[in-house]
Amino acid sequence: VTALDELDTPSVIVDLDVLERNISRMADRARAAGVRLRPHAKTHKVPELGRLQLAAGATGISLAKTGEAEVFAEAGFDDIFLAYPIVGAGKGRRLLALSDRLRLAVGVDSIEGAASLGSVFHAARRRIDVLLKVDCGYHRVGVAPERAVETARRLTDLPGIALRGIFTHAGHAYLAASPADIAAIAKQEGEILAATADLLRSEGLPVGEVSVGSTPTARVAMSVAGVTECRPGNYVYHDGSQVSLGTCEIEDCAMTVIATVVSVPAADRAVLDCGSKTLSSDPLRPRPGGHGGILGRTSRIESLSEEHGVVRVEPGETFRVGERVRVLPNHACVVSNLHDRIILARGDRVEGDWTVAARGRVR
Amino acid sequence: VTALDELDTPSVIVDLDVLERNISRMADRARAAGVRLRPHAKTHKVPELGRLQLAAGATGISLAKTGEAEVFAEAGFDDIFLAYPIVGAGKGRRLLALSDRLRLAVGVDSIEGAASLGSVFHAARRRIDVLLKVDCGYHRVGVAPERAVETARRLTDLPGIALRGIFTHAGHAYLAASPADIAAIAKQEGEILAATADLLRSEGLPVGEVSVGSTPTARVAMSVAGVTECRPGNYVYHDGSQVSLGTCEIEDCAMTVIATVVSVPAADRAVLDCGSKTLSSDPLRPRPGGHGGILGRTSRIESLSEEHGVVRVEPGETFRVGERVRVLPNHACVVSNLHDRIILARGDRVEGDWTVAARGRVR
Repeated sequence: VTALDELDTPSVIVDLDVLERNISRMADRARAAGVRLRPHAKTHKVPELGRLQLAAGATGISLAKTGEAEVFAEAGFDDIFLAYPIVGAGKGRRLLALSDRLRLAVGVDSIEGAASLGSVFHAARRRIDVLLKVDCGYHRVGVAPERAVETARRLTDLPGIALRGIFTHAGHAYLAASPADIAAIAKQEGEILAATADLLRSEGLPVGEVSVGSTPTARVAMSVAGVTECRPGNYVYHDGSQVSLGTCEIEDCAMTVIATVVSVPAADRAVLDCGSKTLSSDPLRPRPGGHGGILGRTSRIESLSEEHGVVRVEPGETFRVGERVRVLPNHACVVSNLHDRIILARGDRVEGDWTVAARGRVR
Repeated sequence: VTALDELDTPSVIVDLDVLERNISRMADRARAAGVRLRPHAKTHKVPELGRLQLAAGATGISLAKTGEAEVFAEAGFDDIFLAYPIVGAGKGRRLLALSDRLRLAVGVDSIEGAASLGSVFHAARRRIDVLLKVDCGYHRVGVAPERAVETARRLTDLPGIALRGIFTHAGHAYLAASPADIAAIAKQEGEILAATADLLRSEGLPVGEVSVGSTPTARVAMSVAGVTECRPGNYVYHDGSQVSLGTCEIEDCAMTVIATVVSVPAADRAVLDCGSKTLSSDPLRPRPGGHGGILGRTSRIESLSEEHGVVRVEPGETFRVGERVRVLPNHACVVSNLHDRIILARGDRVEGDWTVAARGRVR
């Protein structure tokens, strides 16, 4: 297969021209801001893509799960941060095995969680680097800034634990009403974390890394004085939600899905062969707005079942059975996780494919 | 690993006692109703599980995608119906290759779609069996009952096409407000399809199979006179939505997810290590109600991100970091599709695992 027209559907396509531009733009931004870039590879889960990020200047990668780290370590990545509160002796033992081969750190936000890892490392006369997660307003995980000193102090007292720094994630930016609101959230993300770092240092606690991250907030947050590292993930692909948030334009979206119209049961309804098992059922952010845009059309996927994408056909547009369309997913990170391989293209030419090697590594 | 306690999390568990009971109950119902049972294996995508269904009396299986049929054919299944409007010469060639090895039929709801398959089979001097999809009120795919005669007549005129019967799916039952409403929808599902079959026959059109299907509607729809086959899928596992719909009780749910509490950042919030990459973001049916129940608790997963299940902790309940819980997913069929393997258990004892062999076969 050398042309997109010949691919069976549904197929997930990544345009390499757009991907490369996204990678170099974010690397340039981090360089200009004077911060380290540690992209979150949960978006793509593809070692080959991670290597492009490193080649563009990233100093390491972020991941969420121990199993993802095992895949990337096996592929030769030697600097990994698990930006997630990893908990439990079982995971601790796997991390201990990994830590021989790479510079490793993990997120923590509780003494109990950190102790479950520290005890494993301590028994091996080792220490694991941790970054304390600070809640900058998302209210998912992380300690409130006012509790950071106490928690950090107790962390440094734990056997087997070495405090490398602090990190945060402003996930609430994905619900922001406007780009101005996102910028305000991003500024706060950077400022809260930098102020927390100052406070910890004034108490004699070691804070090497001050790490922020998310694609919508990266540009502003990484520019705040005191921030040392940024961890955006989605920017490699972008998606419909990033367009809606104003983070990028449609032409900055590297990932699309080629689908076939399999049914046109009514004038206002067409059905594509991509459902929630291809696109996921993640909603459009910041406001719900269907389950996928269709390039070149105003009609959108209005609802999904497992293998059906039901398009509400706007007046004046037509869909024919057998016709192929390109769908812009709402959320690229979860689409990656549904597919074993992605197809690489430049324009309409197929350039190869990549295995999504860390797909499904939820443990 | 011989006990569930020793499993790393998150892990998808299928209790074999419950699974076997679900399989035999549905088989008994079909036998009592005098219809063939052709379970939709998209729910589990596991050949070993499909063989249990056949052993209990199923006459064949249903699937949605050509790639799924290829996996099950390779595993020895010899009677497969693709209950989906398959479209395109590329898929037609793959179906032609399969049809040498098994009794195969596919769904159609358009002349264009059927012609794209028929031309491939006709060129090989073969015919492919098709079932015409009839819309019984779900308004997703399928022809309106009043258009069935005209479409069926044109189908029988197409080269390479053999009309085996008609089928429908009452997906709107998943939005029904009460068990009584589901029963009414199910009755209509059976009656509309049986009446359509009578009409086609009165016009001299061949209708061998009259096939209904869905777990909530199966019991009532399969009992309607004239129905010959039933295609429920979800019943092997059941899930939170089936409980909410009144289709089953919690103890009839064979699939659960073992998760670990990784963070308790506030008194009313706990975070599990299962997010949308483990549970999917499919909503609870028939009404939204969080993203997963927790066995033995009233607290539910209120929101998901990719690897976080955020629990709203109800007053009086507590969650501790490191504690393990059992989550009842909203929708088992999409959970299956996220995981390469599922763990088999009886009670707390691990009995082995199955590969989800047809996972991700969306093409």
